[in-house]
Amino acid sequence: MNYTFSSTMQAFQSSAVREILKLTQGKSIISFAGGLPAEELFPMSAMQAAFNRVFEMGNHSLQYGLTEGFIPLREAIAERMRRKGMNVTKDEMLLTTGSQQAIDLLTRVYIDPGDVILVQQPTYLAALQVFQARGAKVVSVSGDEEGMDLDDAARKIAEYKPKLLYVCPTFSNPTGYVWSGERRQGLLKLCRDNNVLILEDDPYGELKYDSGESYPSIFSYEDKAEGSAVVYTSTFSKTAAPALRTGWVMGDSEVIRSMAKAKQACDLHSSTMDQMALYQLLSGFDLDGHIETIRGHYHGRMKLMTELLEGLRKYGLKWNAPKGGMFLWLELPEGLKAEELLKEAVQQGVAFVPGSSFYAGEPKYNTMRMNFTHADRDTMTLGMQRFAAALELVQSKQV
Amino acid sequence: MNYTFSSTMQAFQSSAVREILKLTQGKSIISFAGGLPAEELFPMSAMQAAFNRVFEMGNHSLQYGLTEGFIPLREAIAERMRRKGMNVTKDEMLLTTGSQQAIDLLTRVYIDPGDVILVQQPTYLAALQVFQARGAKVVSVSGDEEGMDLDDAARKIAEYKPKLLYVCPTFSNPTGYVWSGERRQGLLKLCRDNNVLILEDDPYGELKYDSGESYPSIFSYEDKAEGSAVVYTSTFSKTAAPALRTGWVMGDSEVIRSMAKAKQACDLHSSTMDQMALYQLLSGFDLDGHIETIRGHYHGRMKLMTELLEGLRKYGLKWNAPKGGMFLWLELPEGLKAEELLKEAVQQGVAFVPGSSFYAGEPKYNTMRMNFTHADRDTMTLGMQRFAAALELVQSKQV
Repeated sequence: MNYTFSSTMQAFQSSAVREILKLTQGKSIISFAGGLPAEELFPMSAMQAAFNRVFEMGNHSLQYGLTEGFIPLREAIAERMRRKGMNVTKDEMLLTTGSQQAIDLLTRVYIDPGDVILVQQPTYLAALQVFQARGAKVVSVSGDEEGMDLDDAARKIAEYKPKLLYVCPTFSNPTGYVWSGERRQGLLKLCRDNNVLILEDDPYGELKYDSGESYPSIFSYEDKAEGSAVVYTSTFSKTAAPALRTGWVMGDSEVIRSMAKAKQACDLHSSTMDQMALYQLLSGFDLDGHIETIRGHYHGRMKLMTELLEGLRKYGLKWNAPKGGMFLWLELPEGLKAEELLKEAVQQGVAFVPGSSFYAGEPKYNTMRMNFTHADRDTMTLGMQRFAAALELVQSKQV
Repeated sequence: MNYTFSSTMQAFQSSAVREILKLTQGKSIISFAGGLPAEELFPMSAMQAAFNRVFEMGNHSLQYGLTEGFIPLREAIAERMRRKGMNVTKDEMLLTTGSQQAIDLLTRVYIDPGDVILVQQPTYLAALQVFQARGAKVVSVSGDEEGMDLDDAARKIAEYKPKLLYVCPTFSNPTGYVWSGERRQGLLKLCRDNNVLILEDDPYGELKYDSGESYPSIFSYEDKAEGSAVVYTSTFSKTAAPALRTGWVMGDSEVIRSMAKAKQACDLHSSTMDQMALYQLLSGFDLDGHIETIRGHYHGRMKLMTELLEGLRKYGLKWNAPKGGMFLWLELPEGLKAEELLKEAVQQGVAFVPGSSFYAGEPKYNTMRMNFTHADRDTMTLGMQRFAAALELVQSKQV
């Protein structure tokens, strides 16, 4: 057979993270590359109890379910969302296979090839893959630690007439930045005035290190989901467990209905067994207390990683100290490409993601992303020693 | 907001089954419409034990997994497939969210808008939705109870130069027909000679009523997966439990790798918790014995439904007695549209799917599909009484 793949297949480049993980197979590599939560913190016994309660509910729990997802879980999530100021009902919500599927489904129902999507610079690489595979034209908007540059956003909206704008405003992947309230409200007004739909991706919002702080979602600045300019997606992957692949997406019911139709063709529905178990978990377990625990651990790991980085300032390395989330965003000295550093790092037994993967347009090659939530203290310390050795070697070669 | 959906969104028609289920909400309707397995036969205690064993494996079971799916389950399925004469390894296999996702993924990576896909007439409606949403041109090939008409297939291949041919040769949805070995081999040769990829959808193959019979898959007539003209998909939804949404797809490793890349963008991976539980189920439970039990029950239910239909022959009703699967395909008298009958049936408290939904081209309006696996004896008897009443009423109105 001579296989003739679709033209859009060419756009499906394998992600850099994936390629790096291939390099590390069979080697004893400490990886700061993936966005993995700390598995020793997973609520194992509560989760096991939740699954057992689902089995006590009877045989119906193993039957086909609704495309939109298990109703009691949708109701419970809607209640959680309302507590965060988001006015939403179960009918304005669809359960998905992680929030990744929400990005894919909205792209299917809203974007035609050639349509323009605005994104942050840098932005989540697996969203870029979805947009590019759809044949969309992806345009970056500049920004800083406070969020998107609203003047640049206004210019690009006027110039490109985008249909969609994709943002991750709270502890962004890859930078860890959190937007100010002004930028959130300003962007919402701008998009509403210009009929641009916002896709707000919020997988990390719960992982804020200062419990007293509040970062209202862009969606929460809308009165209600009906007619909303925002489609909001989040997930249990970072708060409960990734293996259950349960995310949700909410917005105007017309948009959600369209996405449900598309989902029916994609996979009929996601695992209702997992959805039922998460409903039981929410009912019988203090998830908010558990999230508080995770926050404390992740904050400690972030501080440890930045402490371990201090010794590398002499090489011209810069980084931010994020207020939440899972990632550090680092800047290498001008002229040092993260791809070059990675090759040496893998030799030394440590991995990360070069920043260039996260750019829709011209990348900054001297940037990189490091995850600090997965490795424990000893592993992180050893990994950072290896990273320092790699950096030292590469810098000495450059001189 | 004025939402501007994608042009392909127009192709996402909600399925007829779905619309019918809406009609039945809040009413006491007996539905022969859905393709639901008998939930009282689900292996509840074995499944619960399987989930508990996953939890004993440790925290890693709740972590992110591979896009391709849990390796031990892929190995176990490959072993099962080899016992059925299909020469495949785990690297030529991808786990999916039901076999529905396999149809969607292959369509994404193989089909561009305007490409031609050949299908049986009638065929699985949710496959038609995927193909139409992709902008493919879908062309029907005629056939009979033995399978596709190979002369018509050859003509259509010459005329339309299709890239893909989609078939469900064993207990087809909706007809329940099973193809002869000659047709399977003939079609394989034809497609191989003309570089047409075959997507063989086999969700029902295990549900054969005569255990002594053997219906080798089209895939099994290939020496090996490498270079194969066949991509084969099946699922645990009809043998273990639909709620776990675990299917698999196998074929040439180049095709499977492409589908894995597409899946990564769609949803990263399916529930590995469910995949691990199914692996434990395969290890600690006699699934083949369980399937044997299901076969017996379904055979009995099929016989009951056809017995109950006997009294309706006087209205000119015709049907087949399938050798396996979940569906009866019925022909109404010429001139009686199944849609008309359905309206009256819903009034009487019973539902089915009009056959027209299953046609890519000009439908036969006097056809319909009935599921016989979900209802128990009493429910089926009552449902068929209601169906008889509806048919009688509609016929009397026509005269």
